Amino acid sequence: MSAAAAVRTGQSSSASEQLDVFRLLIDLEDRPGIVGAVADFVRDVGANILELDSHADDGVFYMRVQFATPRGSVPFARLAEDFRRQVGGPLEMCWELRDVSKPKRVCLLVSRYDHCLLDLLTRWRANELPCDIGLVVSNHPDLAEEVARFGVEYRHLPVRKGHKQEAEEALLREVVGKYDLLVLARYMQILSGDFLQRVGIPTINIHHSFLPAFAGADPYARARERGVKIIGATAHYVTEELDAGPIIEQGIERVSHRNSVDEMTRIGRDVERTVLARAVRWHLDDRVAVHGTRTVVFA
Amino acid sequence: MSAAAAVRTGQSSSASEQLDVFRLLIDLEDRPGIVGAVADFVRDVGANILELDSHADDGVFYMRVQFATPRGSVPFARLAEDFRRQVGGPLEMCWELRDVSKPKRVCLLVSRYDHCLLDLLTRWRANELPCDIGLVVSNHPDLAEEVARFGVEYRHLPVRKGHKQEAEEALLREVVGKYDLLVLARYMQILSGDFLQRVGIPTINIHHSFLPAFAGADPYARARERGVKIIGATAHYVTEELDAGPIIEQGIERVSHRNSVDEMTRIGRDVERTVLARAVRWHLDDRVAVHGTRTVVFA
Amino acid sequence: MSAAAAVRTGQSSSASEQLDVFRLLIDLEDRPGIVGAVADFVRDVGANILELDSHADDGVFYMRVQFATPRGSVPFARLAEDFRRQVGGPLEMCWELRDVSKPKRVCLLVSRYDHCLLDLLTRWRANELPCDIGLVVSNHPDLAEEVARFGVEYRHLPVRKGHKQEAEEALLREVVGKYDLLVLARYMQILSGDFLQRVGIPTINIHHSFLPAFAGADPYARARERGVKIIGATAHYVTEELDAGPIIEQGIERVSHRNSVDEMTRIGRDVERTVLARAVRWHLDDRVAVHGTRTVVFA
Amino acid sequence: MSAAAAVRTGQSSSASEQLDVFRLLIDLEDRPGIVGAVADFVRDVGANILELDSHADDGVFYMRVQFATPRGSVPFARLAEDFRRQVGGPLEMCWELRDVSKPKRVCLLVSRYDHCLLDLLTRWRANELPCDIGLVVSNHPDLAEEVARFGVEYRHLPVRKGHKQEAEEALLREVVGKYDLLVLARYMQILSGDFLQRVGIPTINIHHSFLPAFAGADPYARARERGVKIIGATAHYVTEELDAGPIIEQGIERVSHRNSVDEMTRIGRDVERTVLARAVRWHLDDRVAVHGTRTVVFA
Repeated sequence: MSAAAAVRTGQSSSASEQLDVFRLLIDLEDRPGIVGAVADFVRDVGANILELDSHADDGVFYMRVQFATPRGSVPFARLAEDFRRQVGGPLEMCWELRDVSKPKRVCLLVSRYDHCLLDLLTRWRANELPCDIGLVVSNHPDLAEEVARFGVEYRHLPVRKGHKQEAEEALLREVVGKYDLLVLARYMQILSGDFLQRVGIPTINIHHSFLPAFAGADPYARARERGVKIIGATAHYVTEELDAGPIIEQGIERVSHRNSVDEMTRIGRDVERTVLARAVRWHLDDRVAVHGTRTVVFA
Repeated sequence: MSAAAAVRTGQSSSASEQLDVFRLLIDLEDRPGIVGAVADFVRDVGANILELDSHADDGVFYMRVQFATPRGSVPFARLAEDFRRQVGGPLEMCWELRDVSKPKRVCLLVSRYDHCLLDLLTRWRANELPCDIGLVVSNHPDLAEEVARFGVEYRHLPVRKGHKQEAEEALLREVVGKYDLLVLARYMQILSGDFLQRVGIPTINIHHSFLPAFAGADPYARARERGVKIIGATAHYVTEELDAGPIIEQGIERVSHRNSVDEMTRIGRDVERTVLARAVRWHLDDRVAVHGTRTVVFA
Repeated sequence: MSAAAAVRTGQSSSASEQLDVFRLLIDLEDRPGIVGAVADFVRDVGANILELDSHADDGVFYMRVQFATPRGSVPFARLAEDFRRQVGGPLEMCWELRDVSKPKRVCLLVSRYDHCLLDLLTRWRANELPCDIGLVVSNHPDLAEEVARFGVEYRHLPVRKGHKQEAEEALLREVVGKYDLLVLARYMQILSGDFLQRVGIPTINIHHSFLPAFAGADPYARARERGVKIIGATAHYVTEELDAGPIIEQGIERVSHRNSVDEMTRIGRDVERTVLARAVRWHLDDRVAVHGTRTVVFA
Repeated sequence: MSAAAAVRTGQSSSASEQLDVFRLLIDLEDRPGIVGAVADFVRDVGANILELDSHADDGVFYMRVQFATPRGSVPFARLAEDFRRQVGGPLEMCWELRDVSKPKRVCLLVSRYDHCLLDLLTRWRANELPCDIGLVVSNHPDLAEEVARFGVEYRHLPVRKGHKQEAEEALLREVVGKYDLLVLARYMQILSGDFLQRVGIPTINIHHSFLPAFAGADPYARARERGVKIIGATAHYVTEELDAGPIIEQGIERVSHRNSVDEMTRIGRDVERTVLARAVRWHLDDRVAVHGTRTVVFA
């Protein structure tokens, strides 16, 4: 297996142990020479490109590059500064450079349904999710013990009726500057636009329907009422407009007239947790670029 | 093996050639004794049950029974009359009894997109659809030659702006009393409630989205705009409310950021034709019962 | 929701609380009058049929019937005896009658991979699997603590090289007469034909490939070597011939050239646990009849 | 829509009409500087990169690049010669450069089953397959008329028992030097290793099973006998060993105990044609690289 593949699975072979691996995700107005400029930069720092994917859409060029340098040869800070000066700045890119050995810090939010939360924690413990899960926040105390088993801190931040702003302030104090990603693992509170602006990090939500169908509450009951033959779940970045953020991933499962709402809910749980885990993994691997209301997913 | 199974499995034994096969599709208020009453009737006419499926939902009991009698032993008319008198009437059922050897008569409607139409005609010619396709009606003349190759009559009934009622009258004259099923194989005209009442036979439509998402026009463009990762198609019975009739079948295909609207349209065409063919086949096999806004599909 | 649906989801509504629900799974040589005989029996004991499905294949008739009597009106033992005398015996059926309120007793076997085991236990705790899981047996001590959390007994029965027969004897002592179903949740020991005969209860295994492809060891590595684009998992009843028993359920997931063996293994784990859970649920719901090397699944 | 997308769908927008689009598919031993060398070359000829995908596996680096130059600015022959001299030769690559405006020339082989053949021809007529289909060869005369409708030449080359070599010679005379791709659209003759060597162009076959399961004859009957719950089809490059060539694409469909061999055959036909069409399109778009027994598909 090559270094790239080794890194990709989050498992290090002896070969990759002697490499520093970096990841670059960029988007900018399409023009000639972008790939060349990046490739030149990578070559000049003595690195080798492990993976490169690109996409052009509506005049915007997206690229994801994973490259490796000999262990310790280029400090990350200098690499980032050089890239800014030589490539990112002159070409006016949006860009993000990451040291793959530094996992993203993740905070999970949950209410009472535990299937998505436990699924993420279980995958994380099985090394399927390359990140640091540092905190679980819930508006209920119920899942404290379950979370403790994974060695993750659990914070109960109740949301009292009419005191939502207060709750969001408490949440901001827990999260801002400490985490790189929020994941709403069936968190049944709507986050305000003010919160989303101030939190300043991406927030991924799992919605238990095949959006845009059945946005809002009670999607399974409405799906059964409408008589659909396929139900689904949607993982998306949270934006101020409810259930309207850029979709990262969707999954489906067939249902029939035989399935009650309870059964659709049970079947749907499996879809929800699979879809959310996939979306979170892609985000952690820097595979997702946002393009207006859509995403580019280099999966 | 029984005759129906033999027929269904395409394995014709000499036995099945000496049988008459009938199919009963019923629904009624759930109560004890329904299966027994039907089973008794079947036994008393000297028939054997080949397939039986049932479903109870919201206090309604649905059942589909296929049974066989020795060739010529019970004329269909008497069988139907006896069933009405002995079972259907007393139990106040909705019921439909069919002689399987008499295929339903089908009229296809199409505008300009030919993929669903040609797919149905090709399957029909390959004996995949047990029906008589007697007529194709279109508001455009374009597909006359293609349809002629299948030996099916093609009628061009233009729908001039402001003269929709006139067009519907012409269509009614072609169809009423002559066909048992209308299939809208990408027919781009909306049929009026008045038409639907007067035509008096089921009408199946294929919508090129995963309903209820993207009901109405241009679903692929709207799907791309919304950034969904899965597109679909929906076959449903037509009711007066546009794209809101009981869903018979749905299918999906994954798409990605790489797919343009044109490509989604191309990918979707495959889903549309597969889903429509499946829905039509199930209807022809008397597998679909309507339950308010939903369907029960004994597939 | 009707009583049937309520029972099916394992959740009792007030209506179903006043009913005793029974389930009958039969197969016999096809002949006229089978449905009628069963329906008459059900009517004569004052019961109502909730669900009925049938299938005829190669001259064998299969039927699954769920019916309900007023709470306490007919003791199970008498019902079974009456059925044997009046219907099952005279028609020379294979039949199984079950009191739905008496869940099957299940013993899980596992080695070191925990994903299928924990998935089953989690679903069981969430009331998704209507059974009593009374014991987990493993040839390794590793998962004792995990299992304890679910309140299930864990027995470590090591299988020392050359002492397999001894280990199987120990397992037989644990299981025979105490359980109705064995589930091999990634149990990496091959059970002997002698064991299978003596244990006398159905045994379900999950194989981590899309059988019959890649039967035997290391299916993911072999799948990658062969370059397949889809991997799968197969739940089947265990028979003496390895990986050749009747298939209950299969599931698949797409892979690509980008996926290493490790990633295919990770992706496969999700398929394995979903497929095994579905197969076990169907078995618990008496939806699976074995027909030689195949199964009839009334799902 | 960007030029890239326009080219990809085979539809030219006004923007793309003023561009020459080229496609490069390379593989070579992995080493630093590959992307840079290609990017430099592209920049030096005044071209813009539209799409770029890469993959590293087992020490081999694969890359697909689509780039555009102003209409007429660089003749293809010079571009290819320059690339050979400056990049391909020095880096000892396997490479293929194509002028996207010059479609590949395709010859289809068929026996009696027409569904794959007609599907490819129909897609081709609908501009879904960017190629020139110049010839259909069959060992049966049956489909001559069907093919004529598409304006494609039909050649009947019978394969008489014991005269296979003779038939292959005739086929070689028809094909060598005139076509770039052979597609076996349910061609029921096994091509000899000698033929495959001498024909010198890629040959794609569709096998009607989920390989490696049920290689060889009668896969649907064997699938039913084995009781699988999912059937499939596999498109692969033909190699001397039967049904063992590198897999390009696979697809599946669920079946149940209710489906006879005939029905599985019918269901399978839909899978076969979809899978074959996808594989052929990817090959035509230069998305498929062969890596020993596997393929890298930049889809």
